[in-house]
Amino acid sequence: MTTVHTHDALIARAEQADAESPLRGTRDLFDLPDGVIYLDGNSLGALPRAVPAVVNDVMHRQWGERLIRSWNESDWWGAQTRVGDAVGRLVGAAPGQVVVTDSTSVNLFKAVVGAARLRPGRRVVLTDPDSFPTDLYITESAAALAGLEVRRVNPRDAVAAIAEVGDALALASYSSVDYRTGELWDLRAVTEAAHAVGALACWDLCHSAGVLDVDLDAGGADLAVGCGYKYLNGGPGAPAFIYVARRHQDAFEQPLTGWNGHARPFDMAPDYAPAPGITRARVGTPPLLSVLALEAALTAYDGLSPADVRAASLAVTGTFIDALDGLGVDLPLATPRDPARRGSQVSLRHPQAFAVVQALIARGVIGDFREPDIIRLGFAPLYVTHADAVRAAVHVKEVLEGREYERPEFAERGAVT
Amino acid sequence: MTTVHTHDALIARAEQADAESPLRGTRDLFDLPDGVIYLDGNSLGALPRAVPAVVNDVMHRQWGERLIRSWNESDWWGAQTRVGDAVGRLVGAAPGQVVVTDSTSVNLFKAVVGAARLRPGRRVVLTDPDSFPTDLYITESAAALAGLEVRRVNPRDAVAAIAEVGDALALASYSSVDYRTGELWDLRAVTEAAHAVGALACWDLCHSAGVLDVDLDAGGADLAVGCGYKYLNGGPGAPAFIYVARRHQDAFEQPLTGWNGHARPFDMAPDYAPAPGITRARVGTPPLLSVLALEAALTAYDGLSPADVRAASLAVTGTFIDALDGLGVDLPLATPRDPARRGSQVSLRHPQAFAVVQALIARGVIGDFREPDIIRLGFAPLYVTHADAVRAAVHVKEVLEGREYERPEFAERGAVT
Repeated sequence: MTTVHTHDALIARAEQADAESPLRGTRDLFDLPDGVIYLDGNSLGALPRAVPAVVNDVMHRQWGERLIRSWNESDWWGAQTRVGDAVGRLVGAAPGQVVVTDSTSVNLFKAVVGAARLRPGRRVVLTDPDSFPTDLYITESAAALAGLEVRRVNPRDAVAAIAEVGDALALASYSSVDYRTGELWDLRAVTEAAHAVGALACWDLCHSAGVLDVDLDAGGADLAVGCGYKYLNGGPGAPAFIYVARRHQDAFEQPLTGWNGHARPFDMAPDYAPAPGITRARVGTPPLLSVLALEAALTAYDGLSPADVRAASLAVTGTFIDALDGLGVDLPLATPRDPARRGSQVSLRHPQAFAVVQALIARGVIGDFREPDIIRLGFAPLYVTHADAVRAAVHVKEVLEGREYERPEFAERGAVT
Repeated sequence: MTTVHTHDALIARAEQADAESPLRGTRDLFDLPDGVIYLDGNSLGALPRAVPAVVNDVMHRQWGERLIRSWNESDWWGAQTRVGDAVGRLVGAAPGQVVVTDSTSVNLFKAVVGAARLRPGRRVVLTDPDSFPTDLYITESAAALAGLEVRRVNPRDAVAAIAEVGDALALASYSSVDYRTGELWDLRAVTEAAHAVGALACWDLCHSAGVLDVDLDAGGADLAVGCGYKYLNGGPGAPAFIYVARRHQDAFEQPLTGWNGHARPFDMAPDYAPAPGITRARVGTPPLLSVLALEAALTAYDGLSPADVRAASLAVTGTFIDALDGLGVDLPLATPRDPARRGSQVSLRHPQAFAVVQALIARGVIGDFREPDIIRLGFAPLYVTHADAVRAAVHVKEVLEGREYERPEFAERGAVT
């Protein structure tokens, strides 16, 4: 713990950092309500100003006026791979390897069954027991259908476990960031270990895409999935994405063989023939209002490199941690202090974490609670400034010092937190 | 062939029918371009005027201003079952049996695997060789994973085939309307036959929901799927729906075990426990711009009974067929003339069907082509009037008489037709 600083000195330093950031000005690309410090972009990203005009054009002109003709005229048909390539630029994937489609859950199902078929005869899938639960549920279900057995091994032990499983391993499937603690895992090492025994690696990028300098191609990832509604800001429930490395695409046989993944959909042929390339990961007709909202949202990243975004993310989470220290806030961090092991969030532990989160929300600092004792604060560097980070730390300090979390109105839990 | 009538007499009679229709006025609920007779609502429904205001509210207020809080405040969490119930009202399903989620393809995958698990030990699925292809592709893939064998039997022979397969049958899976010919099948009879041997029936309602008086509950359907972007007018690629009859819900184990189908999603429990009721058919976080656009679109049906809509649909397709006859247009109908065997479209056969469709589009009559020789014209009774039907018939006559389809500009095929 360092010297306790005055708020004013901390704010002044933060404003200086904001003025010098390579991301300065990006906040103006988002429509955020006054008086809110939004630290929940890892649950639902903020509204990019570019989205409404695009969605209105899709509704009024493309759909209303041009009707069915927009499949060609506005290239609705190519939207999923076009937006996929835009996502690919943020996660280190060369064009033609990412498609926007379905939900993360559905895409992970394709990835696990597809991996089993790429590695026939191998019977084990490794995954993280602390994964976001949908990953566990889907992996278990897909594994059961594909004849695989799931073993749950913490990512810090994954490299050793992979070597131990050896050539029985089909797939190591891990999230790059723990959704609760914000800990960043070394998926390159996991991937190298998987490849050393002839297995594949799948990366879940839900808490990484748009904030980390994810490098799927250089890192050797075989498969990846991620969502569009967190740091990519595509809107509530925005479509997800799936990455299949080019070297696997021709042999990738995913089980959801819908007509949009067919080689010649308008032949209406009686039997399935997968499209070449990543297009075979498509399934049914995609929800275009949501797909095209995501495309508009991604323009907020125009001109930014993933390395710049990652640097800004680490700077702002660092500022928040430093401010907590500087203000003398004494709460245990669930998130590693080491920048190399930190995603884009800072999670704090408190026995009354739920009520603390409610008290912060009442002050306009929106984060969320995760079982059992996590105050989870996400820092989307495109719209959370260093000044926001310092002000949020001041609010945390005041909530704790004033024991605001003991007020009865903050105790009751709603259905969704 | 009857006497050839004058155009004026036909139009006058049609306008009289429009004035007397129980659906008069519903056309004003849609935003259609001037000069267009839109007969492709069976591919992409028209824009309901109610949609843009709702989608803008979702973007600006629910997402932009209220952010993550809208999951509770605007009941995003309940949207899929709420909109599912609204779809249910149009297809004869009591509340709590339909959920809006994913695409038709993904939902059919759940239905086929789920049916296999409801009928363990049975190894056969029957389906229509002339189904919309995604049904064939998905059924084959799901069957392979679930250990079933697919037999392709035309719906007109299904009852006999079901009896022959007997207690080896797990599921009879049929579309209620042939997407090419518009022929309406008797799925009640198929369902009764399936039940007689202890099997289940799944109905594909893509070309029925919103235009026929589908009666899932009374007809004994076990499962059903359908899309939101055709006659339901939910917008391009609008989310689809799945119906699971209440009696099967507690035992329905679908394979896409995403967190949104979990009994207590925010417990973040390590193992899957399906939600009670239809909620277990949900998978991942849904694309809410598209889900809520569909909800707004369905308000066009407020106050209309499925029986009224069906009567209006038959009246308007009948007017079109009568007008063709009255005008002396001599093209073979692929669609049955018998109203009891007719969906909500009229398909005509012509050796140069593709070019005929292009010539009609150039005249503002938008239909579509289907392989090999089908001119497919869909009649959405909420916005296609009797007067439209007569005018469309006149255009067909003029395109044929003037051999407009021979013009070179109508010969070239685009990627999507």
